[in-house]
Amino acid sequence: MEEAKHSNMGLTVKKSENFSEWYTQAIQKAELIEYGSVSGCMILRPYSYAIWENIQSYLDAKFKKTGVKNAYFPLLIPEKLFQLEKEHVQGFNPEVAWVTASGDSQLTERLAIRPTSETIMYDSYKKWIRSYKDLPLKINQWVNIIRWEFKNPVPFLRTREFLWQEGHNVLATKEEMDKDVRTYLEIYKKAYENLLAVPIIEGRKSEREKFAGADYTLSVETLFPNGKAVQGATSHALGQNFARSFGISFLDKKQKKQYPWQDSWGFSTRSIGIALGVHGDDKGLVIPPRVAPHQIVIVPIYFSKQPGYNEKIRKLAKEVEDGLVKMGIRVESDLHDDNSPGFKFNKWEIRGVPIRMEIGPKDVDENKVVLVRRDNGEKIEVKTGEVNAVVLETLNKIHDNLFNRAKLYLQAAQKKVDSIEVLKDIVGKGQIGFGAWCGNQDCEENIKDQTGGTKSLNIPFDQPNLAEGQKCSFCERKAQYWAYFSKSY
Amino acid sequence: MEEAKHSNMGLTVKKSENFSEWYTQAIQKAELIEYGSVSGCMILRPYSYAIWENIQSYLDAKFKKTGVKNAYFPLLIPEKLFQLEKEHVQGFNPEVAWVTASGDSQLTERLAIRPTSETIMYDSYKKWIRSYKDLPLKINQWVNIIRWEFKNPVPFLRTREFLWQEGHNVLATKEEMDKDVRTYLEIYKKAYENLLAVPIIEGRKSEREKFAGADYTLSVETLFPNGKAVQGATSHALGQNFARSFGISFLDKKQKKQYPWQDSWGFSTRSIGIALGVHGDDKGLVIPPRVAPHQIVIVPIYFSKQPGYNEKIRKLAKEVEDGLVKMGIRVESDLHDDNSPGFKFNKWEIRGVPIRMEIGPKDVDENKVVLVRRDNGEKIEVKTGEVNAVVLETLNKIHDNLFNRAKLYLQAAQKKVDSIEVLKDIVGKGQIGFGAWCGNQDCEENIKDQTGGTKSLNIPFDQPNLAEGQKCSFCERKAQYWAYFSKSY
Repeated sequence: MEEAKHSNMGLTVKKSENFSEWYTQAIQKAELIEYGSVSGCMILRPYSYAIWENIQSYLDAKFKKTGVKNAYFPLLIPEKLFQLEKEHVQGFNPEVAWVTASGDSQLTERLAIRPTSETIMYDSYKKWIRSYKDLPLKINQWVNIIRWEFKNPVPFLRTREFLWQEGHNVLATKEEMDKDVRTYLEIYKKAYENLLAVPIIEGRKSEREKFAGADYTLSVETLFPNGKAVQGATSHALGQNFARSFGISFLDKKQKKQYPWQDSWGFSTRSIGIALGVHGDDKGLVIPPRVAPHQIVIVPIYFSKQPGYNEKIRKLAKEVEDGLVKMGIRVESDLHDDNSPGFKFNKWEIRGVPIRMEIGPKDVDENKVVLVRRDNGEKIEVKTGEVNAVVLETLNKIHDNLFNRAKLYLQAAQKKVDSIEVLKDIVGKGQIGFGAWCGNQDCEENIKDQTGGTKSLNIPFDQPNLAEGQKCSFCERKAQYWAYFSKSY
Repeated sequence: MEEAKHSNMGLTVKKSENFSEWYTQAIQKAELIEYGSVSGCMILRPYSYAIWENIQSYLDAKFKKTGVKNAYFPLLIPEKLFQLEKEHVQGFNPEVAWVTASGDSQLTERLAIRPTSETIMYDSYKKWIRSYKDLPLKINQWVNIIRWEFKNPVPFLRTREFLWQEGHNVLATKEEMDKDVRTYLEIYKKAYENLLAVPIIEGRKSEREKFAGADYTLSVETLFPNGKAVQGATSHALGQNFARSFGISFLDKKQKKQYPWQDSWGFSTRSIGIALGVHGDDKGLVIPPRVAPHQIVIVPIYFSKQPGYNEKIRKLAKEVEDGLVKMGIRVESDLHDDNSPGFKFNKWEIRGVPIRMEIGPKDVDENKVVLVRRDNGEKIEVKTGEVNAVVLETLNKIHDNLFNRAKLYLQAAQKKVDSIEVLKDIVGKGQIGFGAWCGNQDCEENIKDQTGGTKSLNIPFDQPNLAEGQKCSFCERKAQYWAYFSKSY
């Protein structure tokens, strides 16, 4: 069993029949993840880390355009500091890993490994912020995070250690904060849609689901083929809560002391799992083209019966590769002759390379190559002179197809609900309920209890009108807004 | 005092008079570092993190050209795994920070925070390596590291947490390993010389100073103005030690089981401190141009007596900035009119920006600007049409000047020594002793005891001949080679 999982043989389950087994198998067989010796701490192998590097370079450039600068704050947070903001510590305490000893000695104070860095960063912010001239302050860091969860770990989606970026901005006014927190959610939305080809639902989290210590939290969410929703990224309006707890203040233009307004926003390696879970198929992964470590793989179809052909095939492969690389396309050439073309097709299909290029003896004769799309299997014959243009165009078509396919699924899954019974039925079918809601925490508790764990996803920015005197779909209160509900990771 | 340290006022000590106080002041006043709430864990502020990003992008490209791929391995290492290689654990145990609890529960096994990742990585390598076809395996990671030292912390140079890259290669033969370990040392040497303008001494560490668990260690070292040497980076030939301890083996072409040969190599944020310590002067830091976050700062000299001039100055500043940015030059424009030019000059001098560009009313009239070099104060008038070319050329000149200045100092500091007494005298003057040496560990212990802490730096690759029957300069044994000795960080 262990051996089979590590081999390159095909998947033994269908995505539609057993999503979670499909997901685990596909990710391991594609060599994205290795399980480590500590439960929940997984190894990002080169093939998945390269996806993360592509995500990083996209997001980092977007952040910098908004005036954000990168920095690095310590991994370890003194217990006293960690406890300064009351709601924050209550939210995170159960998941904190504690350092208590070094070498052979006990530490005098326990140190928390960062589960998020508000507390350690704001302890410095209070030294740096004196005047309105010091604002806005916009700092981001790309770091590892530890949250010692006890739920069953799932690669990328729920791991005790993960990588992320966390941005922490300080603004002079509430208006600036409200605008800022949307700016980063918008960047995350575009990262999902334009980079990972994943459609999302954007909105505000409920009181029950917001970040511990925030005034409110914005999120992007999507839906997996197994009918479970998954949170993609969050942007938190922290209000003045942390500023008051940490003593961050500034003198405004009239020399009056003010507490500033803060936000924090994060995007993690979970996004990789989301893209893989949304796009894969029964043959394995389908990596969205714009983050794929190899956007195209060249597989020669050697022909040894007539001398000279293999040399010509290799030469053409090299020429085509050089041309594509010059265009900035990420190419893998699988030219070894120790494996059959069939073995290679299978290998790169499992790994989800968006385009396979086949070059055989007939192609050499006719000065062409064959492209095969991973997303739909379509074969395209291309004259060698047109390879660059067609490959670029095909990568974009694959992106669009993946996105549109997923968007249709996400849209079709949204159903209006007007009672807990209907919601239970809807989420039982793996769909998302959309109901008029009061927003109360005890109402959400009740929904969760009555439906076997349904939670609110978010309250969309785009709100349909509520009928005059509209009641909450799930209790006797007055409805405040429309909200999404489903089972989720 | 605390307030003065955080202000932008000039330095209160001279570099030549009190190097360590100069270093601490310069680094804080330039806003590179903030001290955190845990001793030895410091904050890399945006200005220093940007230097690190420039170093990363240089090194990462060099590594990838050698076939290295990036990955990410867990932060936490189970105690059992950490102890598999005997010498390794002995070397690192005293400095390990231990995680013992999560939330409110005790862990069943203590987890070490990585002080280096050989053990956690090779635990996976043994699963990935089966055949000679799996070799070479070349993986690098960019991560944070914790070593809980109890010596006095020094920003960048000795901190309990630092950032680095660690590369871990597996080769089929000793010959390949011996070559490989030199490849990365060569990359490190070039990073110091061509990027950071720091001349280095390269060679092999003594038995006493090599990496815990290695067959041998190569290093680059340089000398600070206070006469203390500092290790710049290391590349370790691990031999088959870890392969045997971790059970990593492969079947060679004849289907015979073999242990592979390994190396590991690391370059850390210490390099930033080295460059700053080597190049700074009494006015503050001098950041080497190729890693400087701002390679040039534009400071307008406003002239309000005659209307229209300030507008013209701003316009020219913007034009010049746009032109430089198009050339890929990193420009900071300090256009605010709330601070005087003198204040700005001081601010950017302390921060070590390589070139300051002044634009005043006369410059606008005459279609020119003035460049001022940070390294030597030279003023250069440049016609606006020639700014791009002259700035590029000047950045290279500054690099060369910094490197040559430091190289002269490093060369002049090397003195041949033929006894412990002479060595003690030499290191007392802040110089480096170069002596014929037996290489024995007890001889090195004795040197250390007799000279107040002198250590061997390394045994250079370029060896002068030893005289027939040459004795060790420090004991009665036969000399094996020439080696460098000095006080060091």
